[in-house]
Amino acid sequence: MLRIDQYTEVFVEYLNAKVKVKEPVNLYEPIDYILQLGGKRLRPVLTLMATDIFGSDHKKALDAALAVEVFHNFSLVHDDIMDDAPLRRGQETVHEKWDINTGILSGDAMLINAYQLFENYEGETFRELAKLFSKTAIEVCEGQQYDVDFETRDDVTIPEYLKMIEYKTAVLVGAALKMGALVAEASSENAQRIYDYGRDLGIAFQLQDDYLDAFGDPKTFGKQVGGDIIENKKTFLYLTALQKLDPTHSKQLQHLFSINPQDPSEKIETVKQLFIDSGAAEATQQEIENYTQKALNVLETLEVPQENKSILEDFARLLMRRKV
Amino acid sequence: MLRIDQYTEVFVEYLNAKVKVKEPVNLYEPIDYILQLGGKRLRPVLTLMATDIFGSDHKKALDAALAVEVFHNFSLVHDDIMDDAPLRRGQETVHEKWDINTGILSGDAMLINAYQLFENYEGETFRELAKLFSKTAIEVCEGQQYDVDFETRDDVTIPEYLKMIEYKTAVLVGAALKMGALVAEASSENAQRIYDYGRDLGIAFQLQDDYLDAFGDPKTFGKQVGGDIIENKKTFLYLTALQKLDPTHSKQLQHLFSINPQDPSEKIETVKQLFIDSGAAEATQQEIENYTQKALNVLETLEVPQENKSILEDFARLLMRRKV
Repeated sequence: MLRIDQYTEVFVEYLNAKVKVKEPVNLYEPIDYILQLGGKRLRPVLTLMATDIFGSDHKKALDAALAVEVFHNFSLVHDDIMDDAPLRRGQETVHEKWDINTGILSGDAMLINAYQLFENYEGETFRELAKLFSKTAIEVCEGQQYDVDFETRDDVTIPEYLKMIEYKTAVLVGAALKMGALVAEASSENAQRIYDYGRDLGIAFQLQDDYLDAFGDPKTFGKQVGGDIIENKKTFLYLTALQKLDPTHSKQLQHLFSINPQDPSEKIETVKQLFIDSGAAEATQQEIENYTQKALNVLETLEVPQENKSILEDFARLLMRRKV
Repeated sequence: MLRIDQYTEVFVEYLNAKVKVKEPVNLYEPIDYILQLGGKRLRPVLTLMATDIFGSDHKKALDAALAVEVFHNFSLVHDDIMDDAPLRRGQETVHEKWDINTGILSGDAMLINAYQLFENYEGETFRELAKLFSKTAIEVCEGQQYDVDFETRDDVTIPEYLKMIEYKTAVLVGAALKMGALVAEASSENAQRIYDYGRDLGIAFQLQDDYLDAFGDPKTFGKQVGGDIIENKKTFLYLTALQKLDPTHSKQLQHLFSINPQDPSEKIETVKQLFIDSGAAEATQQEIENYTQKALNVLETLEVPQENKSILEDFARLLMRRKV
């Protein structure tokens, strides 16, 4: 087993060697651009790690890991168009640097390229990778659609919200790990267990994102603190607060989430206080803890050496301690 | 073997049974809508035909045929966004009836759904279908990119144009037929032959499209005659005329392809006369004949009963006699 930064290095080296601009350049340059923008490379690293954890060689998992990263970036390119986002990782988004049509078409090509990377695997492994990938990809699309739908709905339930973040974010974390298991030809039971671990951790990760967006330290948090509040996003914090508040304060919160003041600082402060006073802030931290614990519990049944299991335990705890 | 209208009926019945609107409806309704808009269903019918031609049962090819049709419609949804097209088959396009974001996301889901349809095939057939599909899909993206690039280039060569229409249109015709061959477990040589037949016929078909757009009978041609001329599209007719005309008339044609008069009728007539006088009209007909003959020649080496071969011969001749 390598350290996480070593897996990242191995992966980035592979990505640089494999992703080349070819003809037509207007199709492939944007693909190279977004893949070179960086990011944490969390998902592909999980794929490599999982292959080692099941006693195989992470080098065999490089194409599967690249497929996961290419797919993730495909979804960023298309989501950024849909969200009209000017920046991604501090740089111009693809549709901003080129145009919307380029973003659509290069994104499409990335999705296809991801499938092609599985062609480097034989027989049943190819089939299982492609099948898991399709199932995951369609769930990511469904999650994105639910997210869009929720913007204009005022009756979103907490189970619906949890399903949305599961589909939009968490299943790809589970799939990244399971792909590593498939490459290592782990048993289907163990492959499913590491998937469940990743999915639950992915949900905890996204809830943590919601929490930090409101309560993160402006000094260490990468994005603007209060961004979700400014955009009136119906996060876990908001939905839980609505449920817990008395009718008067619930109405107040709903009102605050219907306005877009020029200077949002007062709105942010009031909303945060409502999140705290309602107990929603604490409930969110509890839910993060629950999902992390659920992920850790699955590990107990995972049939791999204890030292490998410890790596996944440490990883879960590391993610939950993050401040960014 | 069935008649073409019978294959179409079998296919449409299968499509109606398989394509259902599910949750989230805002993702799946547009998919159902575009797939129900109709169209000739030419590509999936070719898949079914090819399976029968190689002595298997077309019913086995229904999922592969559906994948081809779903992919074709995916490309229409995304292309219509890129072309800002308001109408498709006389009805509103998806991004017009819903919005651009819906068109992007539903299109993405269709591309993934197409791959999932191959999961109904076993082992090597699944692998070969998915591999051929990815290769074809990426070529279609590249063809679309070349088409976009050509709009702003004034040095497009005839070989470049032929490659563009091969990728954008013809390879999917070849792939539709080859998928039928793969389902029937035809030899790889025969699978390649029917692919070549389809690709060459696809090129002839697209050149015929270019020709009819200028010289079709307004009474029978479905679209507005002269549409490509109005839009200054660099078709085979245009590129050939440019090459054949003397410098003075070549300049005149280039000038006409730089203007957008309110009443285009005089422009259309002058351009058509230049297409005829230069010999480009005749050269285009000759090229259509060449590609059709090339397709027919491949059939001679195809190892199937003569009566099945005759069906493909008749089909090629039928396509070339079309007026719409």
